[in-house]
Amino acid sequence: MKKLPDKTVERLSQYRRTLINILAENKHHIFSHELAALLHITPVQVRRDIMLIGYSGTLRQGYDIKELIEIIGKIIDSKEGQRVAVVGIGNLGRSIIGYFSGKRTKLSIVAAFDINPDKVDRVFAGVWCYNYSRLAEILRKENITIGVITVPASEAAAVADAMVMAGVKGILNFTPKPLNVPSSVYLEEYDIITSLEKIAYFVKKM
Amino acid sequence: MKKLPDKTVERLSQYRRTLINILAENKHHIFSHELAALLHITPVQVRRDIMLIGYSGTLRQGYDIKELIEIIGKIIDSKEGQRVAVVGIGNLGRSIIGYFSGKRTKLSIVAAFDINPDKVDRVFAGVWCYNYSRLAEILRKENITIGVITVPASEAAAVADAMVMAGVKGILNFTPKPLNVPSSVYLEEYDIITSLEKIAYFVKKM
Repeated sequence: MKKLPDKTVERLSQYRRTLINILAENKHHIFSHELAALLHITPVQVRRDIMLIGYSGTLRQGYDIKELIEIIGKIIDSKEGQRVAVVGIGNLGRSIIGYFSGKRTKLSIVAAFDINPDKVDRVFAGVWCYNYSRLAEILRKENITIGVITVPASEAAAVADAMVMAGVKGILNFTPKPLNVPSSVYLEEYDIITSLEKIAYFVKKM
Repeated sequence: MKKLPDKTVERLSQYRRTLINILAENKHHIFSHELAALLHITPVQVRRDIMLIGYSGTLRQGYDIKELIEIIGKIIDSKEGQRVAVVGIGNLGRSIIGYFSGKRTKLSIVAAFDINPDKVDRVFAGVWCYNYSRLAEILRKENITIGVITVPASEAAAVADAMVMAGVKGILNFTPKPLNVPSSVYLEEYDIITSLEKIAYFVKKM
């Protein structure tokens, strides 16, 4: 299958999460307009995305929720799952590790890193925190493909470089410092200031 | 001025943040292709966004950084600034408050809320944490227009409803629970699982 657009993958992930919640409520079918309403998008968008992954519902019942969850899983998960490291165990790093703890997903956080001796060689929500000086060694040994950066902005670029050198293929950057990575590495960046400024703009315009 | 598209506002916020960093390095002009490279987007995108806000650079020098920062500010900030509350003072709530602490922006976090007696009536990075039972009273008294939700997913909908009832006009939801708000309220949602699943998909495809 061809590589899907960024935004489609994002929505597929959201569809799956929503569908898992609905399945837990013992509902087995859903119409595109119901799924769309839950995610504040148009039914056309939902139908287009789901056609793109080669699935279709029935006119009378809509999509089979269980089937759709499985098909999305086949597309976005990898069979063996992927192993994630979090670098920077401040409040944000800890909240991310805590959030994943006990969740069954194909992504597992298997290592944390910090330079603070009070944090190193301790366990945070089931994840071991290594000394940052061991980053390259552990990333390789643990076969980690995805790195999450939650260090101060001034350190972000150095951490990203070290991750890339150690074979990491995807980076999620939570610092406000935009990073440069080789084109063979997938970079996703999130800054809360942007989200809040966007909200502030639309609040002002309302 | 007409309401700008969501994604344009998002990029304007990113342009400004990047430009502020560059100005601090004593650079005074920048070309669209330089700004584009820093943000991993196309120069055409940058030029289109900046034309949309009625600004243009010169062929020889590009954009005047200081002017552009000011113009973006006029568009996305409101004169008096906007007041923000964070509900849920776990690791994520604390990291958000800490992140804003000392930053000069037109957004100020002026109140925090929790139900945990160990957190209530304490100060976190300069922000007072109130008992959640006082939410409506404080939101109104403090003239808070934006609410950030960092509570457990099961509580998110109730918190959002209470915020809306108390006059909040914009909500940033960090729980994995998609929310429903009236169309007069601007809602932005972020879930790290989606970011990581997107990265995982592209890593798999590489």
